[in-house]
Amino acid sequence: MAKKELLYEGKAKSVYGTDNPDELIAVFRDDITAFNGEKKDQFSGKGVYNATVSAFFFSMLEEKGIKTHFIGMIDERTMLVSKLKMIPLEVIGRNRAAGSLVKKFPFENGQVLNPPLVVTDYKNDERGDPPICDDIIYALGLLTPEELKEVREMALKINKILFEFFDKLGLVFVDFKIEFGRLGDEIVLGDEISMDSMRLWDKETGESFDKDVYRFGKGDVMSAYGRVVEKIEEWKRQNI
Amino acid sequence: MAKKELLYEGKAKSVYGTDNPDELIAVFRDDITAFNGEKKDQFSGKGVYNATVSAFFFSMLEEKGIKTHFIGMIDERTMLVSKLKMIPLEVIGRNRAAGSLVKKFPFENGQVLNPPLVVTDYKNDERGDPPICDDIIYALGLLTPEELKEVREMALKINKILFEFFDKLGLVFVDFKIEFGRLGDEIVLGDEISMDSMRLWDKETGESFDKDVYRFGKGDVMSAYGRVVEKIEEWKRQNI
Repeated sequence: MAKKELLYEGKAKSVYGTDNPDELIAVFRDDITAFNGEKKDQFSGKGVYNATVSAFFFSMLEEKGIKTHFIGMIDERTMLVSKLKMIPLEVIGRNRAAGSLVKKFPFENGQVLNPPLVVTDYKNDERGDPPICDDIIYALGLLTPEELKEVREMALKINKILFEFFDKLGLVFVDFKIEFGRLGDEIVLGDEISMDSMRLWDKETGESFDKDVYRFGKGDVMSAYGRVVEKIEEWKRQNI
Repeated sequence: MAKKELLYEGKAKSVYGTDNPDELIAVFRDDITAFNGEKKDQFSGKGVYNATVSAFFFSMLEEKGIKTHFIGMIDERTMLVSKLKMIPLEVIGRNRAAGSLVKKFPFENGQVLNPPLVVTDYKNDERGDPPICDDIIYALGLLTPEELKEVREMALKINKILFEFFDKLGLVFVDFKIEFGRLGDEIVLGDEISMDSMRLWDKETGESFDKDVYRFGKGDVMSAYGRVVEKIEEWKRQNI
């Protein structure tokens, strides 16, 4: 499948049209950004790591009955996906308090959140991705109450699957951001599931294996991301 | 009932203990602030206007079955109220898009919101009163899901009563902020209902009769607040 026109350039992915109007090509670039684009860098191979991990999780979720946009890999950083009509929401799941939650509310960093939280931000760079509550989602016509309920249930199901998986790798699945889109009448998981869009902590040491390594200059982000990829590869060797 | 120790000093009200451990005295001061206290002034008589309007609305709501903390007036700026255990939420109702909603989301200023929106901010000056979604309210133990449902229903009922009342005065009840507290096992309306905590627009001209006059230097805030008090007095003369 050949790449055609560039349709969308995000902070770390570029999306192209294809010969098939229902399919798109997503290229995971080596760019990394933080603080709504204020900090930026490029690390050779970072896009490959995120594409590999995203493909792995999309496949895992599909097997467990979650519909996603993933069709297959074209090369190690290039994914063929179904064309979705994206819903401009960042759906955020949290198993532990961290990041903005701790800055804004009186939670302790690392505090266990049980049941896990699902909250939403309005995806809009110029507006700074503000938190958006349910009534505003309905008023903007982004989702009906029934659809939001479905999205929340999907987010909780995805969270459970990933939490249990990372637990086996010795990692705490702290929180994550996912995005959904419409495919005909269905709402399906889009975007990516990678170290750029989640927090992962070592169960023993609390060490970060996610974009916080980059955000807060905690060490070598490529080693951290690479370690997650290695852990997944080890797991695959033992389980597949 | 005599004022005893000062228990709490807000931006525009001071709250004192009384001889009765279940009752407090709220003094509506002449202070006015905006932008989380960045802009401040004093206008002689402003506290009287807000106390008068609050007392009027608390009485009206009580008659319509909404429980409030209001017991009675001690003088024209001093209210005797039931002591509540306050819930640190600002419950915001919106009939038209205005203010922060328009800044953060793609609504037109003045756009009709039907059904009206009810959203919540976490009441905490140091944290800047951040928007707080339902799952965070539960995780902080502020309200159970059943209690939040009850609070939302009360907010919508209060909104309907006030919207219909202001409509008769020729004013659009654009939006408002209310606060609730616990009285024993019950959740009751506390704080105030005044021109400091709502937006009111002239139905014909769109002119503001609320704190936006002060916030944005649109004219004489005391004339605007005084006009609301006059309209209420006119209505009382015709209806009581």
